[in-house]
Amino acid sequence: MTDKVTPDWIAADWGTTHLRVWAMQGGTVLNHAESDNGMAKLKRDQFEGALLELIEGWLSSGPMPVITCGMVGARQGWVEAPYASVPCKPDHSEHALPVCVDPRLHVRVIPGLKQGAPADVMRGEETQITGFLALNAGWDGVICLPGTHTKWVHVSAGEVVSFQTFMTGEQFGLLSGSSVLRHSVDTDGWDKSAFDEAINDSLSRPERLSANLFNLRARDLLTAQPKEVARARLSGLLIGAELAAARPFWLGQQVAVVGATALSQIYADALASQGVPATVADGARMTLAGLQAAYRQVKEPA
Amino acid sequence: MTDKVTPDWIAADWGTTHLRVWAMQGGTVLNHAESDNGMAKLKRDQFEGALLELIEGWLSSGPMPVITCGMVGARQGWVEAPYASVPCKPDHSEHALPVCVDPRLHVRVIPGLKQGAPADVMRGEETQITGFLALNAGWDGVICLPGTHTKWVHVSAGEVVSFQTFMTGEQFGLLSGSSVLRHSVDTDGWDKSAFDEAINDSLSRPERLSANLFNLRARDLLTAQPKEVARARLSGLLIGAELAAARPFWLGQQVAVVGATALSQIYADALASQGVPATVADGARMTLAGLQAAYRQVKEPA
Repeated sequence: MTDKVTPDWIAADWGTTHLRVWAMQGGTVLNHAESDNGMAKLKRDQFEGALLELIEGWLSSGPMPVITCGMVGARQGWVEAPYASVPCKPDHSEHALPVCVDPRLHVRVIPGLKQGAPADVMRGEETQITGFLALNAGWDGVICLPGTHTKWVHVSAGEVVSFQTFMTGEQFGLLSGSSVLRHSVDTDGWDKSAFDEAINDSLSRPERLSANLFNLRARDLLTAQPKEVARARLSGLLIGAELAAARPFWLGQQVAVVGATALSQIYADALASQGVPATVADGARMTLAGLQAAYRQVKEPA
Repeated sequence: MTDKVTPDWIAADWGTTHLRVWAMQGGTVLNHAESDNGMAKLKRDQFEGALLELIEGWLSSGPMPVITCGMVGARQGWVEAPYASVPCKPDHSEHALPVCVDPRLHVRVIPGLKQGAPADVMRGEETQITGFLALNAGWDGVICLPGTHTKWVHVSAGEVVSFQTFMTGEQFGLLSGSSVLRHSVDTDGWDKSAFDEAINDSLSRPERLSANLFNLRARDLLTAQPKEVARARLSGLLIGAELAAARPFWLGQQVAVVGATALSQIYADALASQGVPATVADGARMTLAGLQAAYRQVKEPA
């Protein structure tokens, strides 16, 4: 049961596993709701119902603008929002419009970005970049968006110039949860010095990653290495290998890290250890700022 | 139901997921049986029953020698067979003896090997090495044993000098079966030229592995890359990264690959592309030869 609010538009972050919505009056959040009705569990004709389940109490008689971003615009989503090609501004205005049965809904889906060579794609992060640039006018540099599939994005003159995706987060999840290392790695706990050492090991010898991984298991068996040490070391080995490959992005650049607070701070610490100070910005806040920028653009086209 | 045979000893390869037994008369295989009663699914008091289930028909009144190797000797196994420390011969004679209720059984468990720095362990592969050396007297060089956890082993004068384990096989399984790449990678099919190219990509830029992985997904989305190409490329990227890290093992060395036929051939091809011709030997055959060497040693101690 949501409070009775009368927004003038609704913001929605619709990813693979979750749907998050905000009742908005201009730039002010009146209310917030979320469900686990992510894109992955919905058939095409189930998206409208999943959205109504969260926002019906916020609707009035006239059509309500709903601005969404994320995997909702994938080929398997509600409506395919074809990728815009970089270099381009991240707030591409060719929104996709899914067909809604309920006349009180007017939904727009922000397209993701693609890159030809090396082949790469993003959906959702482009809106966080739009939000970051809306709050940091004229900002040039590199934005790192850590997560399941971490993105490194080169931004110049308001455009995304190039980007690169790393599977670091997904690899951490699989190795710590489903591989032989699950016996040796804690689900929480953290040893900062083990993390720092592992970052340095991977940055100086990135090709040794696959050997260093099994070494975590052997250290547990032979020396009873504490499991929070193994967890921090596993994270450091993977993030260090990513930093080694992403060096052309961050070396000598102005860097911002946009994502969940704890993970973003881990990346910022790792960059600081390489002499690169990074700005940290909250990912959810940037998503909302990006959706708001898209709404302003729709309401008052340039 | 097994045929009525009268072996003078029984060989057993008892790993994490499977138990394989052979009824032996000297070096001749009279019969063979297997089950999925691997170490991982058995409590300590269930091992004897799991063994009897396969071999009871081969027993006579007197105690039958059963020589086993593999994870059956792990701390969570039937009896812990403490690791021998390298450098040492792989056929360490201090077998562990689990307590058997049935007087017709006399079971021995071959210990694994450990290395202090870098920390590493093996269980089962030491017996394949013993078998390979029994069949190739005086052999010096490097033995690669590809599998879930691939081992590279430096052998000299009949001793294991040092070794290194890589999680390549387990990573391939997790990435192709449980990550976002499962949508883009076939469960079979093979493109040799894609494999060769990926081996070279990883050998020349091993630090780019994590970026090259997501690139497989993006190529599927943007260019509909065939899934058997993606499968071969994923394998090549991971094996190439392993070869980069294992270079000190194989560069300028005599190399033998011991393992399952198809996987061993893939490794041999990759090594050949780097100018290193490798001998290939069947892993199961080497295990049996190693168990046989252990039995001979027990029967006629040096």
